[in-house]
Amino acid sequence: MKNQAFRGVLVPVLTPFTKQLAPDTERFVSFCQWLLAQGADGLAVFGTTSEANSMSPEERMELLDALVAAGVPSEKLMPGTGACALTDSVKLIKHAVNKGCGGVLMLPPFYYKGASDEGLFSFFSEVIQRTGSARLRMYLYHIPPVAQVPFSLNLIERLIKAYPETVVGIKDSSGDWSNTDAILKRFPGFGTFAGSEVFLLDTLKGGGAGCITATGNVNVAGIRKVYLDWQQPEVGKLQADISRIRKTIQAYPMVPALKRMVAHFHQDAAWQQIRPPFERLPDQQAEKLFAELTQLGFSLPRRDAVDERQATSKRG
Amino acid sequence: MKNQAFRGVLVPVLTPFTKQLAPDTERFVSFCQWLLAQGADGLAVFGTTSEANSMSPEERMELLDALVAAGVPSEKLMPGTGACALTDSVKLIKHAVNKGCGGVLMLPPFYYKGASDEGLFSFFSEVIQRTGSARLRMYLYHIPPVAQVPFSLNLIERLIKAYPETVVGIKDSSGDWSNTDAILKRFPGFGTFAGSEVFLLDTLKGGGAGCITATGNVNVAGIRKVYLDWQQPEVGKLQADISRIRKTIQAYPMVPALKRMVAHFHQDAAWQQIRPPFERLPDQQAEKLFAELTQLGFSLPRRDAVDERQATSKRG
Repeated sequence: MKNQAFRGVLVPVLTPFTKQLAPDTERFVSFCQWLLAQGADGLAVFGTTSEANSMSPEERMELLDALVAAGVPSEKLMPGTGACALTDSVKLIKHAVNKGCGGVLMLPPFYYKGASDEGLFSFFSEVIQRTGSARLRMYLYHIPPVAQVPFSLNLIERLIKAYPETVVGIKDSSGDWSNTDAILKRFPGFGTFAGSEVFLLDTLKGGGAGCITATGNVNVAGIRKVYLDWQQPEVGKLQADISRIRKTIQAYPMVPALKRMVAHFHQDAAWQQIRPPFERLPDQQAEKLFAELTQLGFSLPRRDAVDERQATSKRG
Repeated sequence: MKNQAFRGVLVPVLTPFTKQLAPDTERFVSFCQWLLAQGADGLAVFGTTSEANSMSPEERMELLDALVAAGVPSEKLMPGTGACALTDSVKLIKHAVNKGCGGVLMLPPFYYKGASDEGLFSFFSEVIQRTGSARLRMYLYHIPPVAQVPFSLNLIERLIKAYPETVVGIKDSSGDWSNTDAILKRFPGFGTFAGSEVFLLDTLKGGGAGCITATGNVNVAGIRKVYLDWQQPEVGKLQADISRIRKTIQAYPMVPALKRMVAHFHQDAAWQQIRPPFERLPDQQAEKLFAELTQLGFSLPRRDAVDERQATSKRG
């Protein structure tokens, strides 16, 4: 795979908010560092799970500035830079490229429904040409259940042909394996990431790059076992384990459930803060989820234990 | 109806762009003035028809500044200020209120689908409280075919009860008369606007305030005849006339068709510029549309004739 900045398990990082619902920069930076310490191969900050679209472009850029200032390696970052307005998108991409980000993840313009492939191609052409950077690595973000505007195979092909050095991969969050499979077969060498770890092993077997998955916020180490051992005979069991955990969590509203889990496992109630229109996961549902996870034997390393290990390794 | 800043036929104004796809301020101001001269009761700038969501908040605010600076009466303006991010929305509303706009039109946050009424109520509460202005008049923008996030009757009721001086009306672009009818019956005195002139007479009969309609960009004088004469016996024919014209136009992609019509009738090809993901209406379709309109006897006053009449009236 040429031009691939990313491989493995990437996390669309949850965004913590303060009581006043402002982005909580300090918690965000610290959580990103923790995810990398847990083994995350990259951070797809400002994705759907990150409530990116509940934040202004300025809020997203300030968080990215803080991450880079704190020493998080920018080549590990794949910020979401898609927007309905090409001017917003160009602003976000230029900023990401200037910060040295390894790539960007691009939603299609998602307000107007029924856009043609021609119209979407024009949008991406405008954005890429206005950015005007040979350093830009763009990953397409196909998430029709939310964006309602899909990337067809023909559109993907046209973008790859027109911008082979720039359009280098895709995150397929359709939840439809037959679509991921079709992408893998039609575009070998393209950086194809499954949008859920449920499809991780199949994606790797098909020549894909890995997965970018919401539940990486709470289970990145577990999910990475499949990535690391995918050619080992026992990988089937590992895949079954992570799929079971995923399916347990996704029976709940995903973003509220994940924030509740982070609050619980990191012993930090502030993580429950969420911007509307999302709502917090009610106590009763949270208790049910935690009980189900316990039954599956799921646990997270306690946050303070992790911090101590990091500190030890730094000292050593 | 208390607190109602608006009544009649409002136009969600098309936004002209330059060759470089920047908002064309001069053409925009001049077109807004022309619409008011044609009798428009208000201008719902930055709506769906305006490609508002293809523009950044800054681009929208600059256009609004230019309108007010040019002397367009701000009480006639109902800018769209809805956004996925509450911070963007608050910024747009504060700006509109500071400019003295008669009201604002609020899309729901439209990225995350399946939002609960509770989550949407929280979003609007946050926005209204952060704006913190007794001068704010908010109209809800119900357009489920595009936003995919609806305002349920219960949500509308809750918002009216919590913010009776602020949440004063709605634009119903569901295209579903039974929904408009239900709103009219359940919330008498609420400023209910149909999203299409097809429902104008029925809306007025039901106690509604009028309509806010895309085709007002090309037919506001015709549509206003129904508004002015709605209690006259011959109104049925007038309604049939405007419905026929509407249905002819809406058989084409609405925004491209309207831009093409303005380019044609105002003899100004620059009006065809459109931001992707929209595409220009192809010549062949445009010719078919113009032929159909001619057959209906539809015509617009020539732009230069209008300008001259305005000049005369100013001189007189």
